Amino acid sequence: MKSPFQTIALIGKYNSPEIAEPLLKLADFLANLGLNVVVDSVTANHLSKHPYTVLELDRMVNNVELAVVLGGDGTLLNVARMLAPFDIPLVGVNQGRLGFLTDISIDTMQRTISGMLRGDYVTEKRMLLSASISRGEKHVFDSLAFNDVVIHRGNNSSMLEFEVRIDDEYLYNQRADGLIVSTPTGSTAYALSAGGPILHPALEAIALVPVAPHTLSNRPIVLKSESKLEILMHRSDEARVRFDGHTHFDLHGDDKVLVSRYSKPVCLLHPKGHSYYHTLREKLLWNQTL
Amino acid sequence: MKSPFQTIALIGKYNSPEIAEPLLKLADFLANLGLNVVVDSVTANHLSKHPYTVLELDRMVNNVELAVVLGGDGTLLNVARMLAPFDIPLVGVNQGRLGFLTDISIDTMQRTISGMLRGDYVTEKRMLLSASISRGEKHVFDSLAFNDVVIHRGNNSSMLEFEVRIDDEYLYNQRADGLIVSTPTGSTAYALSAGGPILHPALEAIALVPVAPHTLSNRPIVLKSESKLEILMHRSDEARVRFDGHTHFDLHGDDKVLVSRYSKPVCLLHPKGHSYYHTLREKLLWNQTL
Amino acid sequence: MKSPFQTIALIGKYNSPEIAEPLLKLADFLANLGLNVVVDSVTANHLSKHPYTVLELDRMVNNVELAVVLGGDGTLLNVARMLAPFDIPLVGVNQGRLGFLTDISIDTMQRTISGMLRGDYVTEKRMLLSASISRGEKHVFDSLAFNDVVIHRGNNSSMLEFEVRIDDEYLYNQRADGLIVSTPTGSTAYALSAGGPILHPALEAIALVPVAPHTLSNRPIVLKSESKLEILMHRSDEARVRFDGHTHFDLHGDDKVLVSRYSKPVCLLHPKGHSYYHTLREKLLWNQTL
Amino acid sequence: MKSPFQTIALIGKYNSPEIAEPLLKLADFLANLGLNVVVDSVTANHLSKHPYTVLELDRMVNNVELAVVLGGDGTLLNVARMLAPFDIPLVGVNQGRLGFLTDISIDTMQRTISGMLRGDYVTEKRMLLSASISRGEKHVFDSLAFNDVVIHRGNNSSMLEFEVRIDDEYLYNQRADGLIVSTPTGSTAYALSAGGPILHPALEAIALVPVAPHTLSNRPIVLKSESKLEILMHRSDEARVRFDGHTHFDLHGDDKVLVSRYSKPVCLLHPKGHSYYHTLREKLLWNQTL
Repeated sequence: MKSPFQTIALIGKYNSPEIAEPLLKLADFLANLGLNVVVDSVTANHLSKHPYTVLELDRMVNNVELAVVLGGDGTLLNVARMLAPFDIPLVGVNQGRLGFLTDISIDTMQRTISGMLRGDYVTEKRMLLSASISRGEKHVFDSLAFNDVVIHRGNNSSMLEFEVRIDDEYLYNQRADGLIVSTPTGSTAYALSAGGPILHPALEAIALVPVAPHTLSNRPIVLKSESKLEILMHRSDEARVRFDGHTHFDLHGDDKVLVSRYSKPVCLLHPKGHSYYHTLREKLLWNQTL
Repeated sequence: MKSPFQTIALIGKYNSPEIAEPLLKLADFLANLGLNVVVDSVTANHLSKHPYTVLELDRMVNNVELAVVLGGDGTLLNVARMLAPFDIPLVGVNQGRLGFLTDISIDTMQRTISGMLRGDYVTEKRMLLSASISRGEKHVFDSLAFNDVVIHRGNNSSMLEFEVRIDDEYLYNQRADGLIVSTPTGSTAYALSAGGPILHPALEAIALVPVAPHTLSNRPIVLKSESKLEILMHRSDEARVRFDGHTHFDLHGDDKVLVSRYSKPVCLLHPKGHSYYHTLREKLLWNQTL
Repeated sequence: MKSPFQTIALIGKYNSPEIAEPLLKLADFLANLGLNVVVDSVTANHLSKHPYTVLELDRMVNNVELAVVLGGDGTLLNVARMLAPFDIPLVGVNQGRLGFLTDISIDTMQRTISGMLRGDYVTEKRMLLSASISRGEKHVFDSLAFNDVVIHRGNNSSMLEFEVRIDDEYLYNQRADGLIVSTPTGSTAYALSAGGPILHPALEAIALVPVAPHTLSNRPIVLKSESKLEILMHRSDEARVRFDGHTHFDLHGDDKVLVSRYSKPVCLLHPKGHSYYHTLREKLLWNQTL
Repeated sequence: MKSPFQTIALIGKYNSPEIAEPLLKLADFLANLGLNVVVDSVTANHLSKHPYTVLELDRMVNNVELAVVLGGDGTLLNVARMLAPFDIPLVGVNQGRLGFLTDISIDTMQRTISGMLRGDYVTEKRMLLSASISRGEKHVFDSLAFNDVVIHRGNNSSMLEFEVRIDDEYLYNQRADGLIVSTPTGSTAYALSAGGPILHPALEAIALVPVAPHTLSNRPIVLKSESKLEILMHRSDEARVRFDGHTHFDLHGDDKVLVSRYSKPVCLLHPKGHSYYHTLREKLLWNQTL
């Protein structure tokens, strides 16, 4: 077999010892195919003795041509944010019910992945968001997000008040529990709970979805992906920004959150026959009736 | 003049020195009509010298026949919760734009209130909720709510999971940011932001409105007011219960929140001509178009 | 056996010959229990030779003490509207998946109904709406509705414009595809599709749910059941009023539609153990997740 | 003055004699600037004697370099559909409150348009939809749409049932009043009433918004503009397809409606300073509070 991917990283779900066994099986399988296997150092802590190179995620980026992530969509989100700058395609293997990003079952992964290594895959590019927070003249935090950048009142007893500007133009003032800036990938996550539309992942777009907005006359808006967003906090005692529900940063009053498209997409490889619409119906029970 | 209300309590917005002047003017006006005026002791802290009896709220309940609240809807909510057990009718005076509960303008309050003292008022009874929290066999907290009892994840990074039972029958399991148990009064407050229906205040009903629910197939449900609700937390690190957005209590895992109708209603007096529908249109911009 | 119901009407789904066999089986079963059986004359057209009295629906109302309806929720809606004035309790048998109103399976009906005849049932009263249409001084149409009175533009190329008044007070002007005036029973029918809340059937309430309203700032409102509604058409070329999606009447410009609670409730008998919440989850997939 | 547009068509709102006077004024103004003016023949019926060339819309397409439409958004929609194949930029003048497409006031049009003729304009390309209906092997109808292609039950007493496929892949079966296939331009029209998101006009996307869908678990989806949609009617007695709410076609059972992006965009010219977000707030009262 001649695969375009000669060195493959294996990355398991964080803090999940049960991932060790299938991950090592997959490693052996790939090694038997004559490929080089590199194991993420955090994952490696759960593994028994094995012959594979162990590298920290940020050390492997120049050496691997493909990363296989074993876990769920949450694990893949985290890996994708970290590897986004490095143009490494990702393959997602799911331990349980298939997800939007991890659409290969752990039970059939060897067969599916070996097919993909022979070229039976489709490539999908997905956009990320880049967020940066400034406090007066100072830049105080920044992060990528694959799903969403969410500003939320958290335990604040009153609603947030903020102003949104797009491309230097005033959009609105909003009072709400929060505001979700979502990618198409994130449109089936928290933004969906807050009433946002589903955005097909091939769409290059950013959705702005308020959470429990105070006004009756709100409605989500979908913007082109090149839009530059600026969120100015009016009253932000305890307001918190969350990135993919994973990282967070606590805002001060008058902080400014800038969100725009990240310069590089994440590249996902799916086995052929992968169907986004099927996942919508199966995973979200979208439009399901008896 | 012969008013059914001989002793009248005056209660001002908390921590609002600017309420002192209009409140004393109203006190003088009522005293000139031959009525007894009692001033709430917390409000009295802001007042200059005056001849009126000062009493703590819980000391005045046997002596006053009417309470006039100067502030906004929030102030009236707080007073209503405290006076609910004592059958004292409430009149609400608003400093700014008229509210749902405080529908007399501070600018015209003397004329309006003297009309009401002559009998030109309508009486409206509004239900409250009584919530009680148990932890294992122990009862750990309880509170009344005039608007709503809200269970919310606050700064918890994952959604809440809880089970709801009604009258000892299983209703659903829900994953969501939170759950709002709302009175008709609360239906135009936070429950409205979360997508709940407007419930006319004369309706005796409880609305159950999830906040950002994880499932697509949710929808608010409106129950009869006699329903006994039980909310069982599955995973409640950091879950918080809020009562009218004012008081709160932090839940532990496996806490149980019981909510039912409080035995006594709050009695609001409105000037004649008061229109609930007008307030819906003016204050919420309900159904407004150009 | 001593049943409170000695004479029982059997009514089958309209135009459904397949109902004949189970209906006659049930008739024989009831006759064997010593009860009198009356068959609705329209249903009787599908039956082979049988020994039971056949009566038109409006002729049986003084003779029967219970009506068993075989069909689906739609059949029961129709029978309920016709029998509403006559205080005859209804039992609903469903040919297929159980409904909200027809919650006895045709497969187990003999056992269930004989239990109910021995007293194992719960009684549920449900409200109906009474609608009346006037054109200038003339009264031109009236109808009962168990689910809803719906004003709809139908094939009209532009939205309807109408004014709604409640208890002689102005509520709003609306531009929309239509307006649904719904009972709690109807809240799980068309009103649900249009975004209305679920109203527990024990609630005495009327929901007002616009269909595709032109303004962003609309929201359903739930009124007490005693409310008198008045809908005044502004522009009604082709506007149509539908009653339970069954009967309809075409409106002229300036027609006025009056809707209020019908004076008598429908009385449904359910087998013990009947659960409304269970039906919500099973039939509507309410709050369902994987 | 040297304008890039030497021959300018003037087109007035259909059947609107009041447009005659401002239209002739504008014609004189443009002629005085040395430009050639052509008047649409239907509009010309309302005009008193004038010196300008009169041409039918489809005869002028090779001669004019710009079309100025006087009326409202509806008029511009109609003209845009007709001129879409011919690459003629459009300018919209509004008689009343400014619209999304007609954003020049009739009161200030001379000044604004003369500025635009000097180059003070921004160009905006907007996508259209192309719909085609087939019945068995036969092609029975086709039309362009600038806002939306809407399949609706009209006066049909039961909901529509249809299947949607995208790019030859199954999407869902739906029971609903109808289905809206909307452009970004149409996202602020009927799709908004049915609960769809706002799509910025610079986005190249198609929204699929059901009208009063029968299932709780629906949600609008936004697709990339290259998607090929296929809607297969199951039960379509009386189902009607509407194009921009203007043209319609009545479907038979088993008809198939194909919708895809039209190959050419409409080109709108806006005066500089034109703000889409401002129009959202002003015209839709989007996010408005007191």
